[in-house]
Order: sequence, then C-alpha cells, then structure tokens
Amino acid sequence: MKAEIITIGTELLLGQIIDTNSQWIGQKLAEIGVDLYYKATVGDNKKRILDTLQSSIERSDIIITTGGLGPTQDDLTRECIAEALGLDLSKNEDLLEEIKGYFNRMGRNMADNNIKQAYLPEGAVAIANSEGTAPGILLDQAGKIIVAMPGVPIEMKAMMVETVLPYLKKKFSKAEVIKSRVIKTCGIGESSLEELISDILIEQTNPTIAPLASQGEVKLRLTAKADSEEEANKLINLKEAKLRERIGEYIYGYDDDNLEGVVAKLLWARKLTIATAESCTGGLIGDRLTSVAGSSAYFERGVISYNNQAKVDLLKVKESTLKKYGAVSSQTAEEMAKGVRDLAKTDIGISTTGIAGPGGGSIEKPVGLVYMAIADKNGVESYKYQFNGSRGKVKYMTSQVILNLLRKKLLATS
Amino acid sequence: MKAEIITIGTELLLGQIIDTNSQWIGQKLAEIGVDLYYKATVGDNKKRILDTLQSSIERSDIIITTGGLGPTQDDLTRECIAEALGLDLSKNEDLLEEIKGYFNRMGRNMADNNIKQAYLPEGAVAIANSEGTAPGILLDQAGKIIVAMPGVPIEMKAMMVETVLPYLKKKFSKAEVIKSRVIKTCGIGESSLEELISDILIEQTNPTIAPLASQGEVKLRLTAKADSEEEANKLINLKEAKLRERIGEYIYGYDDDNLEGVVAKLLWARKLTIATAESCTGGLIGDRLTSVAGSSAYFERGVISYNNQAKVDLLKVKESTLKKYGAVSSQTAEEMAKGVRDLAKTDIGISTTGIAGPGGGSIEKPVGLVYMAIADKNGVESYKYQFNGSRGKVKYMTSQVILNLLRKKLLATS
Repeated sequence: MKAEIITIGTELLLGQIIDTNSQWIGQKLAEIGVDLYYKATVGDNKKRILDTLQSSIERSDIIITTGGLGPTQDDLTRECIAEALGLDLSKNEDLLEEIKGYFNRMGRNMADNNIKQAYLPEGAVAIANSEGTAPGILLDQAGKIIVAMPGVPIEMKAMMVETVLPYLKKKFSKAEVIKSRVIKTCGIGESSLEELISDILIEQTNPTIAPLASQGEVKLRLTAKADSEEEANKLINLKEAKLRERIGEYIYGYDDDNLEGVVAKLLWARKLTIATAESCTGGLIGDRLTSVAGSSAYFERGVISYNNQAKVDLLKVKESTLKKYGAVSSQTAEEMAKGVRDLAKTDIGISTTGIAGPGGGSIEKPVGLVYMAIADKNGVESYKYQFNGSRGKVKYMTSQVILNLLRKKLLATS
Repeated sequence: MKAEIITIGTELLLGQIIDTNSQWIGQKLAEIGVDLYYKATVGDNKKRILDTLQSSIERSDIIITTGGLGPTQDDLTRECIAEALGLDLSKNEDLLEEIKGYFNRMGRNMADNNIKQAYLPEGAVAIANSEGTAPGILLDQAGKIIVAMPGVPIEMKAMMVETVLPYLKKKFSKAEVIKSRVIKTCGIGESSLEELISDILIEQTNPTIAPLASQGEVKLRLTAKADSEEEANKLINLKEAKLRERIGEYIYGYDDDNLEGVVAKLLWARKLTIATAESCTGGLIGDRLTSVAGSSAYFERGVISYNNQAKVDLLKVKESTLKKYGAVSSQTAEEMAKGVRDLAKTDIGISTTGIAGPGGGSIEKPVGLVYMAIADKNGVESYKYQFNGSRGKVKYMTSQVILNLLRKKLLATS
C-alpha cells in the first residue's frame, strides 16, 4: 500500500506555520506498516490543489489530506476531491444536524457558511470531529482511499486515532510490522563511519540502514519489516550486533538518548561527582550537564572563567603558565581542570579553553582551536581540537567532544 | 517566478525528524517576493526523486532541494538532478581541493567516498559551504534555476544567506517588493498582547500583522507590499510607530535579534561588565551571554553554584541565610548576585536560583518557582517567578526573564 500526504494551506508555503501534522501522520502510518512515498504541500489555489490530487491519485493507493475543510472561501479541499474523481457534492442532512448540534452545545450561532461543511462527495462518509466543527471525509472506491481532515492538529489527531487508523488497519490487516531503531554515534564523521561498515551497508535489505549526520554526531537508522514486533526486534538486534563489532566504540546511545544523559547515567552508576571549568564554551557544558533531571546528584559546580583573572583567582591557574603558553593552551586547560576539581572537591574536573571566533584568531592559534582537559584521581589529560564554522558551532562541537571523551573515560574506569 | 521546494530524505517521511528547512526557506522566498507554489518531500529513492524533480522542472522556474548531498550511498540528489536534465556529472578538481582542504583544517582524513561531493552536473557551479563539507549546487540554464543544498539546517541557511538569496534577488528584481519586519516582544503573553492591539489587528491590510508565539517571546510579523523598498519600509515604519505607542515597553528587537544580543549592545554602549551566579539555569545564561561575538568585552566570569557549598565558598552566601530561607529564596538570590559582583569586581552581578523540576518541589516551593536578582552600584533587586512546563522550559524561561529584566534596567540607567 503506497500512501501520500497532501497538506493544504498558503500559510504553510509562506512559512508562517510549521507543518507538524505530516510528521505525526508519517509516524503513525509507519507504525501500522503503510509505506509513505510522498508528502506535498500546496496553497489555497483550486488549480494547484486539483493538479496535486490528480497526480497523487494516479500513483498511490491512499491519499491523506489536511487543511482546507473550513467554512471560508479559501477552503477548497472538499470540492477539489469531488472534482478530481468526477463526483457530485451533495448536502447530508444528518451531518448538518450534527454541525448545528456542535454550535448549540458551544452556545454559539452557526453561521450560514458552515452549511458548506455538510456537503460530501457521492459515496463518501463523514469522519466525526470530536474536537471541532469541520467533519472529515473518507472515500473508499475503485481501489483508492481518500481521507480529508482539518489542519488543526488536535482535530486531525482525534480523527486519525478514532477513525482513520482503525479503518486502515482493518482494511490492510497484513501481519507486517515496521520497527525502527536509531543508533547514535559520536567522534567519527559520516563518511569515515560509512567506510567502516560499507559492506554491511551494501548488503542491507531487512533491516535497512540509513546514515544521518547532524551537528557533532552521526545516526544510523535501522528499519526492519517482519510479521511481528518480536521478529522485527530480533532482526534489528542481529544487525546491531554486527555493527557494534566494527563501530562499537563510537556508539553512545539510541533513539532519544543524548550525550549529557548518557554521561549522567555513567556518573550515577559510578557514584562520581563532577565540576566544570569553562572558558570558550561559556557555560554550555554546565547547561547540558544540568539539563538532566536529578543532575544535582553528580554536578557540584562550574566556573565560567572567561577572563584570565578568573582563571587565576578561582582555578589557581599559574600566571606564569598564562604568560608562557597563553590562555589557549594544553597547559592552561590542564591547570583549569585540576583547579576546578580541587576547588569543588569532586571526583572529576573538566575544562575547555579556545578561540570560538569569529575574531581573536592568529596564525599560531586560529579560530576554532580548542584545548580541553579531564582531571581525575589518576591525574590530568588534555586534548587539542581544531573546529571550524560559526561561533555557535565551535562552542557546541567543543561540548560534544568533551562529553564524548568523558563518556569513554568513564566506560574505561568501571 | 514560480518556485518549489523539494526536501529529500526517508527520515522525513517516517516522521523521525521534522522539516524545519522548508518553513525557513518559504519565509525567505516570501521576503524577496518569490512565489512558492509547492513543497514536496520524497524519500531516498532514485525513481521517486527523479519523478518529483521532473514534474517540478516542468511546472516551475525555481526548484530548491535540501538533503541527499552527503557522501553516502543513499545520497542521490546530485545524480538525480543531472539525470533529470540529461546532463553529465564531472569531477571538479578545484572543488575537490576545497573539500580536501576542509578535512585538512579539521585534522581529519578525507574518506574516498567524499570524492563524490566534488562532482557537479555540466554547467553547474558549486555553492560554498561555510559550515560543512558538502558543497551545494546552483544550475541556471534554459530558464530554470535549480538549487541543491544539504539538509543540515546550519549549512543550508549559510548557503541561502550567503549565495542563493543574493543570486535570486539580483536575477528577479521585479517592481513589486514584499518587505517583512519581525518585531520581537518579551514579558507579555500572546493573548494579552493581542488584546492591547486588537483594533490595529482588525484594521490591518497593508502591512499585514501576524502574531507568532514562541518560547518566552511573542513576535509580530509586519509584511508590506509596495512599488519600492523605500515605500514598503515607510508603510512598515508607520504601523510600527502605532504599535509602539501601545506595546513599546515589551519590544526588545527586530528580525534576527535575540535578547542576549540586545543586552550585549546595551552593556557595550554603557561600558559595563557583568558576572553571573547561576543555580537552576546551570550555565545557560553564561552560554547565552557568551554566544555574542566579542562577549569578552563585558562578560567577566560566571559561577554555576549548583550545590550550597559552592554558594557559600565562592559567592559568600551566608550559611544562616541558606538555613533560614533556603537556597530557593529572594534572600539567597540577592546574596548570590551581590556575591558574584564582588568576586568578579564587575559593574553588574545577576543570579538565578529555583526548582527546575521535575522532582524537588514542595507545597511551599513548587516546581517552577524561581528567584532572580540583579546587583549593581545602587544595590540589589530580586524577582520571584512561577513558571510551568518541563525542566528545559523552566531553565529557558528563567534565562529569558532575567535577560529581559536586565535589558529594562540597563535602558533605565542611560
């Protein structure tokens, strides 16, 4: 079964609102095993809605639209569906009573233009709207299913859950289930990761594997089709085990995991506490570490030592170190990490110092040069990285890298 | 000029990520007067990408794609564009050098499959990517403009702003100009704001006014059509003046302004320095204040005093205050702000202390209760707020409110 979604409304094209409907519908269709092949967005224009509907009907089995069912003149979905299929629209008296009833219950008068909402294409049934006035439309004929729903998310979702999904599920009650798992990696670029697993990627069939890069991490999405959820999970587990042999060291989590959450769990499990000394990241690492509920169990304090005096005063960085090597140096990073660990009396101290840009760079120390350090009971280790991109990107990449280095160090100290 | 956007990626169909790119591009095209007629989303499937591209090329003048330009096997945009237009792909040696240079600067090896990114369709030029490796593609021939950009938002936006929008603007400088200005407000909810200006909203014609609420702020987008940019600006200026009479105190900036940037400018202009003492916000305010380029001119240091000991040690909060009033109290907030100001010897000290949740609340001090304070040469002032929502929302709202309070205080002390 091939499905498409058409979202209708000029406000979507102008970017005045963001289309969250089609994302949600896509998720729900995937869960019941319906393949979504296309999504389209079109404005409130009769010709273009008609064109879009016609090409969708030609190539797909299920067409789901949102928007354009209201009472106003630029609500054109109802008549376009009828016209695309060569069907007449006729007034449904029962439906009209229902719409009137809704207004009565709300203590409001029904405007005349709401009568329009009681018209349905021949052979269609109305989809009850438990959250508003506009009924939806369900048309199932000649091998095509057309579902039209309002664009208001709460109304659309109610219709999907109460009517549309049960209908589709019953109609296409194939045993097939689609399950996805996202494996999250950090510390390796998309292309290098793909090289390490190129043969696995080439042989992929079920589950399929799709790499997806975002800032500071690469995800692999495994999607399996099977007769049952258990079977699908088994297929995914087998493939994941194979991937882990190659790239296990880069994998930090799954699905909604993030690095700060994973680091938090490791600190909890080991009953370790941490303090941060941030220069170039300006508080971002503290912000990330304290975004996890219950973070006060491991996060003691942080120092944002933006200027040199703060590094000397609070972190006991030696003036001679700053003078000889500069604030952006491995020596300073190490003294900062040790300094904050001593100050806070924590198990771990981490530090960052670098040039976030866009100004402040030199030939020896270009924009994007960052030193980081981790101090623990065994001593201190520092790391040098060269990032590129905007100030925001340098800050974020620094936080991503130090959290990943910390994750690895925590894993090694069981 | 008719334009369409095609976003490419199976993850978009499965609803695993939300497409924010096409919304942003839609806004930018509207601003330069390019009409967007369709948006389409298609998965990583060659036949369907090709079909979608072909119908777009047939009916529109400008086709903008995002996604599918990476180095991996399911990145198909490059070859589909070439095939749709019957063009050969050929390796561009200059481009290859640039990509290699990127990896060199990052201190990483370029994987062989990145070579793919140096191929361009005949007659196309590469769009420089200031935020990543994948170059974009710009093809302008036979009356059709095709622009292909990566799906990573930060990379796509850089290409649009630096290359694509200037190119389209120059090419289609038509007489009618659409200008937009976004007026940003803070410290008032959407419905209260609308009530204050309801008559202005009702009479709107040109410019139109669209309110848009987002976390911690409400924007008003004014859009004017006119024969010239000057005329459009004049219309917007008149309407803005009218709005300012009613809601001037809430307006903090325009368009891409953010609160930290506005506060930064005020601090610069007054040659004032600042230090932060954060508890519940965990570094977020430091992060925001240091996200502005050149922030070392005003931001001296921050203390993330997450536990009580840190408040006592570094900020000289009195143990008796903590004992008598608790860490979440106006007294503690005030001592923190004064303490960090003294410690850092800055003109201003600000503080936050509260219960970000989801745990840790009580009947007297529920989740979302936050105290903030601002200390300056005139003394210290504290503020009590009750937020609701997730941990992330409480942290963000706190940072938003204290920055706005600071903005107002700075404005008052000229």
